[in-house]
Amino acid sequence: MSIFTKIINGEIPSYKIAESGQFYAFLDIFPLQKGHVLVVPKIEVDKIFDVPDDYLAALLLFAKPIAKAIEASFDCNRVSMVTVGLEVPHAHVHLIPIKEADDINFARPKLQFTKEEFIAIQQLIVTKL
Amino acid sequence: MSIFTKIINGEIPSYKIAESGQFYAFLDIFPLQKGHVLVVPKIEVDKIFDVPDDYLAALLLFAKPIAKAIEASFDCNRVSMVTVGLEVPHAHVHLIPIKEADDINFARPKLQFTKEEFIAIQQLIVTKL
Repeated sequence: MSIFTKIINGEIPSYKIAESGQFYAFLDIFPLQKGHVLVVPKIEVDKIFDVPDDYLAALLLFAKPIAKAIEASFDCNRVSMVTVGLEVPHAHVHLIPIKEADDINFARPKLQFTKEEFIAIQQLIVTKL
Repeated sequence: MSIFTKIINGEIPSYKIAESGQFYAFLDIFPLQKGHVLVVPKIEVDKIFDVPDDYLAALLLFAKPIAKAIEASFDCNRVSMVTVGLEVPHAHVHLIPIKEADDINFARPKLQFTKEEFIAIQQLIVTKL
């Protein structure tokens, strides 16, 4: 069972942002930027383009209000969407508020926040959904 | 009119990969990796999550066979999907074959190919569609 399935099932705690029958969104705890969210399908498929078509058709529509809430919550130009997927074999989409292209450089050191800071970021986004 | 609309209209030449009523896909001529493709909706909307819902629902389904053709054409682990969008105010999705996360680092110098090399890359992908 992937770490994301354990998060979806509540076996591992997460800072949840939104959920549907098909997807679960939560704060990335190794964020590149403040407001970095992961959107995960509720099925374990490694690569994003191997996810079934009904999930692919629904994914961006599920992500859209979350991206807009992130964009409204933080000082940024827009929200970038990124799939990399080399570390966890369970497809996921990164939603990252950016000011410049280098803000989605995955080689950069990740930001660190306290539990209280993560909760504040979570609440800021959720209240704008 | 955006540079992408001019490409879609054929006013600016491109190495076309695929086209539908809603989308146009072609080789990025400033590629991060060999096989770097752009998928562009045939309407001028700046930010990806402001693109109308019927386009968002169709986008990943249009991109899927292209991503699989790219993955089958080049030595890579998988195809990454990225939106940045800070340079051209016409939403577009980058499809980039990657081996490691740093392969989508947009601060890296872009690759340079001759016209003949671009045509060879185009044909390699198109024949696998």
